[in-house]
Amino acid sequence: PPPLQRSVGIIGAPFSKGQSKDGVECAPNKLRAAGLLDRLRQQGCAVKDYGNLTFENVALDEPVNGSKSVRTVGSANQRLSEAVKAVKRDGHTAVILGGDHSLAIGSIHGHTAAVGPVSVVWVDAHADINTPLTSNTGNIHGQPMSYLLYELQSKLPPLPNFSWMKPCVSSRDLVYIGLRDVDPAEHYIMKLLAVKVFSMTQVDQLGMARVMEETCDYLWDRTKKPIHLSYDIDAIDPSITPATGTPAVGGLTYREGVYITEYLYQTGLLSAVDMVEVNPLRGRTEDDVHSTVSTAVDLLLGCFGRRREGNHLPDYSLPEP
Amino acid sequence: PPPLQRSVGIIGAPFSKGQSKDGVECAPNKLRAAGLLDRLRQQGCAVKDYGNLTFENVALDEPVNGSKSVRTVGSANQRLSEAVKAVKRDGHTAVILGGDHSLAIGSIHGHTAAVGPVSVVWVDAHADINTPLTSNTGNIHGQPMSYLLYELQSKLPPLPNFSWMKPCVSSRDLVYIGLRDVDPAEHYIMKLLAVKVFSMTQVDQLGMARVMEETCDYLWDRTKKPIHLSYDIDAIDPSITPATGTPAVGGLTYREGVYITEYLYQTGLLSAVDMVEVNPLRGRTEDDVHSTVSTAVDLLLGCFGRRREGNHLPDYSLPEP
Amino acid sequence: PPPLQRSVGIIGAPFSKGQSKDGVECAPNKLRAAGLLDRLRQQGCAVKDYGNLTFENVALDEPVNGSKSVRTVGSANQRLSEAVKAVKRDGHTAVILGGDHSLAIGSIHGHTAAVGPVSVVWVDAHADINTPLTSNTGNIHGQPMSYLLYELQSKLPPLPNFSWMKPCVSSRDLVYIGLRDVDPAEHYIMKLLAVKVFSMTQVDQLGMARVMEETCDYLWDRTKKPIHLSYDIDAIDPSITPATGTPAVGGLTYREGVYITEYLYQTGLLSAVDMVEVNPLRGRTEDDVHSTVSTAVDLLLGCFGRRREGNHLPDYSLPEP
Ligand SMILES: [Mn+2]
Ligand SMILES: [Mn+2]
Ligand SMILES: [Mn+2]
Ligand SMILES: [Mn+2]
Ligand SMILES: [Mn+2]
Ligand SMILES: [Mn+2]
Repeated sequence: PPPLQRSVGIIGAPFSKGQSKDGVECAPNKLRAAGLLDRLRQQGCAVKDYGNLTFENVALDEPVNGSKSVRTVGSANQRLSEAVKAVKRDGHTAVILGGDHSLAIGSIHGHTAAVGPVSVVWVDAHADINTPLTSNTGNIHGQPMSYLLYELQSKLPPLPNFSWMKPCVSSRDLVYIGLRDVDPAEHYIMKLLAVKVFSMTQVDQLGMARVMEETCDYLWDRTKKPIHLSYDIDAIDPSITPATGTPAVGGLTYREGVYITEYLYQTGLLSAVDMVEVNPLRGRTEDDVHSTVSTAVDLLLGCFGRRREGNHLPDYSLPEP
Repeated sequence: PPPLQRSVGIIGAPFSKGQSKDGVECAPNKLRAAGLLDRLRQQGCAVKDYGNLTFENVALDEPVNGSKSVRTVGSANQRLSEAVKAVKRDGHTAVILGGDHSLAIGSIHGHTAAVGPVSVVWVDAHADINTPLTSNTGNIHGQPMSYLLYELQSKLPPLPNFSWMKPCVSSRDLVYIGLRDVDPAEHYIMKLLAVKVFSMTQVDQLGMARVMEETCDYLWDRTKKPIHLSYDIDAIDPSITPATGTPAVGGLTYREGVYITEYLYQTGLLSAVDMVEVNPLRGRTEDDVHSTVSTAVDLLLGCFGRRREGNHLPDYSLPEP
Repeated sequence: PPPLQRSVGIIGAPFSKGQSKDGVECAPNKLRAAGLLDRLRQQGCAVKDYGNLTFENVALDEPVNGSKSVRTVGSANQRLSEAVKAVKRDGHTAVILGGDHSLAIGSIHGHTAAVGPVSVVWVDAHADINTPLTSNTGNIHGQPMSYLLYELQSKLPPLPNFSWMKPCVSSRDLVYIGLRDVDPAEHYIMKLLAVKVFSMTQVDQLGMARVMEETCDYLWDRTKKPIHLSYDIDAIDPSITPATGTPAVGGLTYREGVYITEYLYQTGLLSAVDMVEVNPLRGRTEDDVHSTVSTAVDLLLGCFGRRREGNHLPDYSLPEP
């Protein structure tokens, strides 16, 4: 087995301007309050908490080509990119606690700035690959992959406060898992670029065990790169994680969701993880919120070595009478 | 891939006399109100709505051999058979919105009257293959397959208002998926006729992907015939579709249910679809009803080409800056 | 197919001192009230109900090495061991209705006393293999496997009221299914003894059909022995069986749970079944309790030949008109 990453650097990114619903900015502190850091330490991780980033709301941030809060999102992602770059240079696996999924722009950008090309595993009900010109909603959390891919640059208009970033991901290094709510434009783009997609149909057809095998076979066909896992909690079925802004029926089970993290941990290549779109204000009951937050925590624990068969530290010794 | 049916003819069959619970007659309008027609059109289908059939309650319809409302059910199915025949002659894939499952008698009869022999894929918690002489309840919605199969004719007593119909399905052309609540007599009959059954045990053992492959291998062993899909919503687990008259635990997941429809669409052979036993008065909450109705809609969308990986129309062109 | 056990001897074991939550002692009567006996008879079983055992609370039962109620648990299990031995000598498949999982000590002990070595299939979220010296809680329901295994005897302190028992199970004859909440000490022990474990990760990876095949391949590698199935209801996901003392997310589906029982029935080797940790006072609603109890009943019916494809008695004859 490969050497396993056990040093975790946590960045809170309480950012919500990539979409329109209040609450997603509360998630970083909710995830911490659920015991994330202690539980990572209990399973043998060294954890450094870099705290929450602060983001400014850019004044006069009028829509651009229909996209909302472009300047604010651009500026926030620039800050996040720097923060992720610093965490990676400190030698940690980076954990980015969102916030909405627009933050993947800065997160993946900063990650590649520090370590070079990465493989992206995007676990989501949605492809988030609209361009500003194809988006129906104007919410940038539905667009981040289009900003990041080399192959889509000719399709993007220039955007204010995004001049700091350059595309940094090849469509050949991207795998989607869990898609089930995809816009026609997004489907067109994914076909055009021949992006590797395991939609829920493929998950049903192959089973998650084979999906993960094929994911890694595909990504490692050329060379093994560090993995950026961008985990949208709405990938999981809303019966389990209802407290999110854009739930979609027919999602991953808790067990499938955890299996993904256990499998990627075992690769030894997990280098950064986004956990996004947990929105503690969107559940209808306290149970809804609790289930969503604790699932997100379990997914993160799975990324850092928790196994359902159990774990014990190497120096454990069994007491005798 | 084969040429795909994209022309849909919808018949509402608000019929409930095959069982005893009020409400199932409301389903056709509920399914329309949930946006079925618009959504079919949005995914590129031509849709013609033939409206709701009207059925008369036959007076003095006393039980026959214990079976209830025999004359009313017979007469309603005669009308439905004619309606389905007309829709098929108009060149559409027929969609029959039930109503209870006794309407499969007329639906399948009319379908075969128009197109000749068909393959029947019966997705249900129940086998609905009691004869009038084996039924414990006397509800004809538990009997339709016995009326339709050539091989069971010697077991059926003559029934008033059924002289218009002749059996039209060979037991060799029938596949069950999802069974888990089967009467001893039904089990005996299925063994006697060697009917192909994928009960929930087989679904658990093989997985739905292999079940669908084996379903088509089995049906296509001799010749590819048009497919009649008779979908009882109670095939799906009652945690998802509780608003139905005879729920049974341990059912298909939403995802398995949808997978069936996606797979059958891809065959290009889907020629008629029954969607039955949605009962908007049986849920305990509004959520129960909504979840049941919207699942039924999703299943129908799956029958007509909706894919979870997304769809785009052939003439889509990506906007450039 | 092998000759199938159809004679059932039922022992109620309303025992709760292996843990600290009231209610688990009500389960035997709840399972009977849910129709267990009648339904077993309807599916062709001969059923003898041996009634509920009575257990005395040993006075001055102070903790021993931190373990609680040791003398009471020891004495109760001695009684249960005798009762199970008697049922086996009467020629029945024994069904032990718990009560908490500490009763597996007496149940398995009595079983082996009557029939010799057995294979143990332990279906549980938990491994219940702490020794009195590793337990964090001191609840003996988390310890029974350590009392039973030959290989752990040097790790156990002497315990009052346990001198009647000797270890009787080889770690080679034990298979776990469903684990997902395992203490570090338990994980250490299972690795040390190379116990065969299908944790939820393996269930996800292999699917339940292969898990059951591999379970029997493993157990039958040397010789086919009678099977003792020890079924903790908390193996099933708490969305289905919430009324239990130590629920754990990410459990078996109802269907997987039933598949285990169908598969083991088909082996013809099922010789005793524990059904434990149903706690009718732990559900939040009546539905919670009902779902838990009726799932437990369905699992027991599956152990005695109920099939989801249906059943009919050998002498069934189809009525003709
Ligand atoms: Mn997303
Ligand atoms: Mn999403
Ligand atoms: Mn039906
Ligand atoms: Mn049914
Ligand atoms: Mn347990
Ligand atoms: Mn247990």
